[in-house]
Amino acid sequence: MSSLPPTALPAYPTFDARAASPWQGQDILSVKQFSREDLAYVFRVAHEMRNLVLRIGSFDLCRGKILANLFYEPSTRTSSSFAAAMERLGGSVISINEVRYSSVAKGESLPDTVRTLESYADLVVLRHPQQGSVALAAKYARKPVINAGDGVGEHPTQALLDLFTIVEEKGEVDGLNVTMLGDLRFGRTVHSLARLLSMYDVRLRLVAPKILPMPAEILDELREAGVTVTEHHSLDEVLGDTDVLYATRVQKERFDDPAEYESVRGSYVITPETMSRAPQDMILMHPFPRVGEIAMEVDDDPRAAYFRQIEYGLYVRMALVAMVLGRA
Amino acid sequence: MSSLPPTALPAYPTFDARAASPWQGQDILSVKQFSREDLAYVFRVAHEMRNLVLRIGSFDLCRGKILANLFYEPSTRTSSSFAAAMERLGGSVISINEVRYSSVAKGESLPDTVRTLESYADLVVLRHPQQGSVALAAKYARKPVINAGDGVGEHPTQALLDLFTIVEEKGEVDGLNVTMLGDLRFGRTVHSLARLLSMYDVRLRLVAPKILPMPAEILDELREAGVTVTEHHSLDEVLGDTDVLYATRVQKERFDDPAEYESVRGSYVITPETMSRAPQDMILMHPFPRVGEIAMEVDDDPRAAYFRQIEYGLYVRMALVAMVLGRA
Amino acid sequence: MSSLPPTALPAYPTFDARAASPWQGQDILSVKQFSREDLAYVFRVAHEMRNLVLRIGSFDLCRGKILANLFYEPSTRTSSSFAAAMERLGGSVISINEVRYSSVAKGESLPDTVRTLESYADLVVLRHPQQGSVALAAKYARKPVINAGDGVGEHPTQALLDLFTIVEEKGEVDGLNVTMLGDLRFGRTVHSLARLLSMYDVRLRLVAPKILPMPAEILDELREAGVTVTEHHSLDEVLGDTDVLYATRVQKERFDDPAEYESVRGSYVITPETMSRAPQDMILMHPFPRVGEIAMEVDDDPRAAYFRQIEYGLYVRMALVAMVLGRA
Repeated sequence: MSSLPPTALPAYPTFDARAASPWQGQDILSVKQFSREDLAYVFRVAHEMRNLVLRIGSFDLCRGKILANLFYEPSTRTSSSFAAAMERLGGSVISINEVRYSSVAKGESLPDTVRTLESYADLVVLRHPQQGSVALAAKYARKPVINAGDGVGEHPTQALLDLFTIVEEKGEVDGLNVTMLGDLRFGRTVHSLARLLSMYDVRLRLVAPKILPMPAEILDELREAGVTVTEHHSLDEVLGDTDVLYATRVQKERFDDPAEYESVRGSYVITPETMSRAPQDMILMHPFPRVGEIAMEVDDDPRAAYFRQIEYGLYVRMALVAMVLGRA
Repeated sequence: MSSLPPTALPAYPTFDARAASPWQGQDILSVKQFSREDLAYVFRVAHEMRNLVLRIGSFDLCRGKILANLFYEPSTRTSSSFAAAMERLGGSVISINEVRYSSVAKGESLPDTVRTLESYADLVVLRHPQQGSVALAAKYARKPVINAGDGVGEHPTQALLDLFTIVEEKGEVDGLNVTMLGDLRFGRTVHSLARLLSMYDVRLRLVAPKILPMPAEILDELREAGVTVTEHHSLDEVLGDTDVLYATRVQKERFDDPAEYESVRGSYVITPETMSRAPQDMILMHPFPRVGEIAMEVDDDPRAAYFRQIEYGLYVRMALVAMVLGRA
Repeated sequence: MSSLPPTALPAYPTFDARAASPWQGQDILSVKQFSREDLAYVFRVAHEMRNLVLRIGSFDLCRGKILANLFYEPSTRTSSSFAAAMERLGGSVISINEVRYSSVAKGESLPDTVRTLESYADLVVLRHPQQGSVALAAKYARKPVINAGDGVGEHPTQALLDLFTIVEEKGEVDGLNVTMLGDLRFGRTVHSLARLLSMYDVRLRLVAPKILPMPAEILDELREAGVTVTEHHSLDEVLGDTDVLYATRVQKERFDDPAEYESVRGSYVITPETMSRAPQDMILMHPFPRVGEIAMEVDDDPRAAYFRQIEYGLYVRMALVAMVLGRA
């Protein structure tokens, strides 16, 4: 593994545009599908998407293709991100947000609904509250299905955009100190990101309230993969040499005792004072929405990467859509 | 009338692309608008749409045109189908699904809403729960209106896609034995399809529970038109020489006595066993959504045409949209 | 000020297409932003949009750009109008109507939501029930924000389209007698239009029930600006020499005494009889939706300009979108 310091330019592998895309027709269901080489490929394509968007906004890579955006539970952020991704690739979008009122309410099964939509569209993006439902849908569908979140299951494009943010901002993943802060027990986001990071040479610091630790099985996985993991209750113990600080929501509902919530809450809020004690080249991430975990005064700090993180999500989704459509 | 066996290539009339389209600016309100020649024309255009979609996905026949998709009641299938149809023709879509919350809730009349939308768009697709409402809207609109279902009234594009499915799958309508199965009393779909079929030389077999027969006035219409119609309570009586089996939902709510529902229900479910006794070149159709009328094990049978039927719906709607916009 | 009679051709200033657009990147928040020269510019661009739409329907002036249509309260008319405007400019639209169910329901702040959407899109159109909220959002956004109505605050594109309608229909604003009819107290529309008109040489007649007069502070503003304003309770007093009659809704809820509402109501309804006493070159406007204020029998009168008014709204919104995107 590389021990070079992070550079501005990510070290992407070379890329042969003439080769047939191995991703054409594939489903994107889980971060477990991705090897380190796969990730490098996704990020190289996403980086090209970023360059193209910054230079020309939109282009016709997927012109004439239709994406069905099928959301069984609302998510403005994710559905808008996929819609914009397809539109910036020159394709079209059919949005289905009303599932609770329509055929489904009449009792139609998920496989039937997905097979209906793939009769009209070229790929299906699916969010569903039930774990495993997207894999079930993909089993029946002939066209590519992308998992946009299946309850307590996975939300792979979120994890990929988190890692892509680190790659773009820090230039390299190997050698980084990554600190995860907040609710590490229920946060689907940090679980998936930790799994992805375990393929790299990182040191992982987990800062969580006593009742919200990273689950033991994930800790075991990380250690088996050779990641140096340490657990903490105070950010101060690790802030000084953190390269990437990933904050998450600490939801009141997780606490039986409101007083405990209040006592814990304050120490997990990032303020300008926190940032004054953090390294100059640290980046601060958050999966959003935030509800008080990061003070708005921090937004103008150049280390606040969370709005850029949202934008990186657009590029990662553009990459994945283009890949499964055989265009990248 | 032809007595040839069905062939793979439907016998379409020749077509002069240079002629002005008689359909430009027309409304699509009812299956009663369509003569046999009209149907041949629609299906010829729909067949071309199918070829173009299979070859190139989308094309710019209606580029720059806008379709307003105005749904006063939700229908994922129909609204998505029209949206995809317009997008594959290179046009754009404005979707209005929220009518229950907006101007309409403030008491705006349907004619005013439609005239508002035609100020922005080039045609209006309208679904409304009230019979006759789409014809009313069309009376006031200057631009074409397509009926996407008006309550117990009509749903002409469904009937057209059903017939197009038969044409594409069997090559010819004349000479076929068509069996309709299930709730033939309340099923708007089978009423419209039966009326369209009455223009052809078909034998129609109606298999329904005692309390859900085809209404007498439709039977009269069919017989006046010279169709040989027979009524049955068991599919077994006619399955052996059925060319087209059209299954429909049998809804529990139609029965006063739940026990009667349960006793009837089983004999109207299509299983692999049913298919084993059906002719090798029969096709099985269903308007969807299905809720148990066809076992999922049947889906892999090549005679199961219901997913292809959904796709044919896309092509028929592409044809109708292009026709009323003067592009076909 | 001109005292020429109105002509068919609006007197637009000359226009240098090579100049950099001073509107690029600007927010559209309030009618107060617009000088008379600004209005002339907007209307010149809107007039060009009208010509282009009538001639070719759509064109690629904003191709590759994405508009986020963020509506915290439903408005079919306004959201459809902006969507169609963007699509006729060749751009794409992301519609977010479900805000009440999603991130916002999780407590996300408006600035965070808008900054998320601008990560995907090139401009944000925002309707929000709270006065001042759109200005707040614009303060945080890097990309242009257009106010599509902020509660009792402003709805500037409605006021601009109202004035554009007068310009296009009458050729000139100076010298006109404009009569406003109905609820002038709570009608946001007439307040904004009156303010815009105060920049021109018009005579303004306000016809309202006793309990629904134009607010004193607006009357003061108008008189300070040199507008001749008179107040009336009966339309008959001014109908004979009215050039522009702007009718508004008189909502039952505004009256404590239902009997008073009924007595007032009739005298504010425009019927063919009313029109028979109106000048031959008068135009009749209404912001819509109407609920009985104008009889449908009036619709065929060429002076009924309210459906054309809706269409002018499309052109004004096309102009504003193109301007803030630096394309006009």
